Amino acid sequence: MNESSSEPGTVRPGGRTARVREAVLRAAGDALAEDGFDRLDLAEIARRAEVGKTTLYRRWGTVPGLVADMLGEMAADSLPRTETGSLDGDLTAFARLVLGTLTDTRQGPLFKALIAAATCDEQTATALHRFYRVRLDEWAPCVEAAVTRGEIPAGTDPHEVIRAVSAPLYYRLLASGDPLDEAAADRAVLVAVAAAKAGVFVA
Amino acid sequence: MNESSSEPGTVRPGGRTARVREAVLRAAGDALAEDGFDRLDLAEIARRAEVGKTTLYRRWGTVPGLVADMLGEMAADSLPRTETGSLDGDLTAFARLVLGTLTDTRQGPLFKALIAAATCDEQTATALHRFYRVRLDEWAPCVEAAVTRGEIPAGTDPHEVIRAVSAPLYYRLLASGDPLDEAAADRAVLVAVAAAKAGVFVA
Repeated sequence: MNESSSEPGTVRPGGRTARVREAVLRAAGDALAEDGFDRLDLAEIARRAEVGKTTLYRRWGTVPGLVADMLGEMAADSLPRTETGSLDGDLTAFARLVLGTLTDTRQGPLFKALIAAATCDEQTATALHRFYRVRLDEWAPCVEAAVTRGEIPAGTDPHEVIRAVSAPLYYRLLASGDPLDEAAADRAVLVAVAAAKAGVFVA
Repeated sequence: MNESSSEPGTVRPGGRTARVREAVLRAAGDALAEDGFDRLDLAEIARRAEVGKTTLYRRWGTVPGLVADMLGEMAADSLPRTETGSLDGDLTAFARLVLGTLTDTRQGPLFKALIAAATCDEQTATALHRFYRVRLDEWAPCVEAAVTRGEIPAGTDPHEVIRAVSAPLYYRLLASGDPLDEAAADRAVLVAVAAAKAGVFVA
């Protein structure tokens, strides 16, 4: 009769509900990173998290529901942007953050698995797009600051500049398989800055 | 006792072996595009192709083996590059080709499924990377021609320029979910040309 205590928001943060959620999201991330999304199921996640299967089914319902919750948590937890005082410096910090994530032994396979899952499931795709939107919103002010400083033209679309830095790294990870290294990250920054200075991202 | 006739290369092109291969690769592509790679199996492909399951198992062995063969065929079949006489024109033709593929109702889901499959399987990943290498090699001469014409600096890395045009479109398809439209394709070209002119792709 205590079921309402497992609903989000009905118990204090840090209580049992929050601990179970943390353990389950961690286990789901581990399972995705290690096994890929094609072998993901709630029973395996329950086993890894040492949580009853019924708790998972009651709270998240399906694997996509759980993955969407995980992506929401990842967006909320993600690092704040770095402010270096120059567009080149800020975008380099961003590119290194993306590179570090995509080449991390846990995060790299996890992102591949999340992207693969999103190709098969609308709920996951929506959660993934929201995750990237949060990241773009977090870093957009570094472009606005560069406009204010006069480094790049007024009217430059901040999201387009940030996307231009990410895209070559994701392309290497997912499509071409070319090396994901600092040279690739630094070149992505140089391309975005050169294009921004040329006014290509002016809306 | 006629098994050798179903080995590649032992019968004339256009014979029964070639027809079976064409039907099976077509069926595999349809199944991938319609169902996603997570539900792909050889029995379903055999049913769609109206070919015996044993033929599929004997010839391709596994789903990744069949998908690798399909990617090899796609690379061999892909369209030759367009020559317009300017870097901007050539890269626009390339960007429109990529856009057309990724937004096509069959090819778009097929590429998503192939990329998802590659995240889970090494053989598929290797075949996918080879496919993109063939595409890069096909279009690289348009960058070399632009160097010869003096449009961009000597030493510009052709593959990097072509990758720079593709990457933003794949990023939208797979990660951010932002619109895949002609504006995105044309901007990808402007970014690559501006960066190339600024010397960013000089090796």
